[in-house]
Amino acid sequence: MAKLTTTLGKGNTALRKTGEEFRTIWQKQDDPKVVQIIDQRKLPHEYVVHDLTKWQDGAFAISEMLVRGAPLIGATAAWSLYLAALEYGATENGTNAIKDVAATLGETRPTAVNLRWALDRVIRVLDAATIDSADISLADILEAEAKAICEEDVEISRGIGIHGLELIKEISRRKHGQPVNVLTHCNAGSLATINYGTATAPIYFAHAEGIAVHVWVDETRPRNQGSQLTAWELAENGVPHTLIVDNAGGHLMQHGMVDLVITGTDRTTRSGDVANKIGTYLKALAAHDNGIPFYVALPSTTIDWTIDDGLRDIPIEERNPDEVTTIYGRSGEDLCFVNTVASNTNISNFAFDVTPAKYVTGLITEKGICDASRNGLSTLFPDAAANAI
Amino acid sequence: MAKLTTTLGKGNTALRKTGEEFRTIWQKQDDPKVVQIIDQRKLPHEYVVHDLTKWQDGAFAISEMLVRGAPLIGATAAWSLYLAALEYGATENGTNAIKDVAATLGETRPTAVNLRWALDRVIRVLDAATIDSADISLADILEAEAKAICEEDVEISRGIGIHGLELIKEISRRKHGQPVNVLTHCNAGSLATINYGTATAPIYFAHAEGIAVHVWVDETRPRNQGSQLTAWELAENGVPHTLIVDNAGGHLMQHGMVDLVITGTDRTTRSGDVANKIGTYLKALAAHDNGIPFYVALPSTTIDWTIDDGLRDIPIEERNPDEVTTIYGRSGEDLCFVNTVASNTNISNFAFDVTPAKYVTGLITEKGICDASRNGLSTLFPDAAANAI
Repeated sequence: MAKLTTTLGKGNTALRKTGEEFRTIWQKQDDPKVVQIIDQRKLPHEYVVHDLTKWQDGAFAISEMLVRGAPLIGATAAWSLYLAALEYGATENGTNAIKDVAATLGETRPTAVNLRWALDRVIRVLDAATIDSADISLADILEAEAKAICEEDVEISRGIGIHGLELIKEISRRKHGQPVNVLTHCNAGSLATINYGTATAPIYFAHAEGIAVHVWVDETRPRNQGSQLTAWELAENGVPHTLIVDNAGGHLMQHGMVDLVITGTDRTTRSGDVANKIGTYLKALAAHDNGIPFYVALPSTTIDWTIDDGLRDIPIEERNPDEVTTIYGRSGEDLCFVNTVASNTNISNFAFDVTPAKYVTGLITEKGICDASRNGLSTLFPDAAANAI
Repeated sequence: MAKLTTTLGKGNTALRKTGEEFRTIWQKQDDPKVVQIIDQRKLPHEYVVHDLTKWQDGAFAISEMLVRGAPLIGATAAWSLYLAALEYGATENGTNAIKDVAATLGETRPTAVNLRWALDRVIRVLDAATIDSADISLADILEAEAKAICEEDVEISRGIGIHGLELIKEISRRKHGQPVNVLTHCNAGSLATINYGTATAPIYFAHAEGIAVHVWVDETRPRNQGSQLTAWELAENGVPHTLIVDNAGGHLMQHGMVDLVITGTDRTTRSGDVANKIGTYLKALAAHDNGIPFYVALPSTTIDWTIDDGLRDIPIEERNPDEVTTIYGRSGEDLCFVNTVASNTNISNFAFDVTPAKYVTGLITEKGICDASRNGLSTLFPDAAANAI
């Protein structure tokens, strides 16, 4: 695999890169007790690095969506527990205090299954920790675990990229090298993970291999993660793309302008139902109606092996109506919020929907591609499937 | 039929009402040579009446979408020809000059079939006009025709309302009076017509009859006609409603929160394919997937009897990318535009899509409700169907 070259983070290399690689969360240079993130709410207008100096900063970053995307939420939670360990780790009830923090962090975003996965993983390490030397602290142990979670996530994205690349290559061959048009919804990109992304990893890997690829970027109301994040990171990486409103994808599919849909997911049931950003289901229906492959890219950590029926069993977060009424943007030289709706308007703001497995052509995981079904998942993850209730 | 009571236009009754009725286009009180409209681009933030004093003002109002909606576009074109007649009607080549104006007006919005219908109708009247008295002018004749087009449109909306009301009544009976949840996309409301609307007419008539009804209002990106126009006029009429992003409708339908979808259409083929605001097709797919009736309300003037295959034969207008990047709203006390997208972003902005007839449960017309098929349309419009090629 060719090394993915990226211009992401140019001008901020010291802070944001590990070697040649872009990262979305890292320890501050010369002050590793501070964790840094990009305030993604301000993209693409401003590139602002935000310091997390205590665990509450991490909780705020997750709940207010300075960071978003299942893997990055998990990593931020892990780093937040490291910050909690810096504060409480050497106290008498340090372990319990950190566990209380984990419980609080677990409430910040109810739908993201690997928020809990990351918290549980760190808690297991915490429970197993034996501090038998003055040279090691709970904070040291949780720092190592947060780092490991990040490194593993990069490897997961790389695995998704390698496997998904084959889908794009095959379409490129069929099209004799004409650009492969990929539609994506929301941001399941580098900015949602530690690097490479999930839905975008195959795209970045194809682009790095010189395969002509073009991305239709859904705006993704209400938070505009497509227009503000996906378009930004594709531009930073030099990947050709076109922004469209969420309403447009069906029309493009009807007219042969989409070859492949790849989205991310926040949670996949063991039967292959996928919860993802609200509106994903509508794109899956349109892909199905037009015979276009609809793939979902995911780290296996986002598979919820305890449930079958996503429509029945995945709770769907309702978020603040302000997300619908208020839009952040540039007015001349100023950045401001504008309210686009009459003040007395009643608003409903469901954040996710569930796409039934029957509309999902396949799941792209770090272990390979499989059918969106219990059988498909069992072939890639036999142990987890066997252990599932 | 109970008289529809409306609070629309309160505080502006002198300008905007004919008797008790709200209108979207009218002659200025005390100066009938000026035609007035509401600048719908400024709703819901400001209620601004805009003067049309020459035909070019009408062309501008149509192309820049101060007015929109097929019936209102047609009426505005007819009134624009009246303004042209005031200017050119008494000149030597008056008739030809007015026809040139009609040709120009015909180019302002390529998808709206009853723009052409209204222009053709006025031109036929113009061709038949014999000015044999100093007491009558071309302008008088075209004024009468524009008025007639408006009065007939109100009667058409009333007919749609009366027939569509039965669908809502039936669902209300099945739900034992619990609110009937209707989802609509874009604005096919009073503001799109002369009064009552098309998709909204059944809702207003149900509300006037005391039937509990609640409307899910799609935001309708990129121009936000739902959040800015439909929500505004439903609020003015006291109809309970909730604003949602365009992405949300599928989720609501999956969870039994939608009983009925009613949209408008800009153009319906003789086989029942419907062109409407981009994104309508996605809602039709979701309704179909969840067994929810999907109706399209239309004046029969928007049926295009010359074509069968909407996907192949209806040209889809691409509009200015600024519609996607730029949003109008209130920032504190000020109204301003903000740009929400990085400046170098490539954008595609198709304005309409086509919903194939197989996903349309029925068409609600002024003559009754029929299947979305050539057979269905033939039962209601036998003469037009027989004359169709």
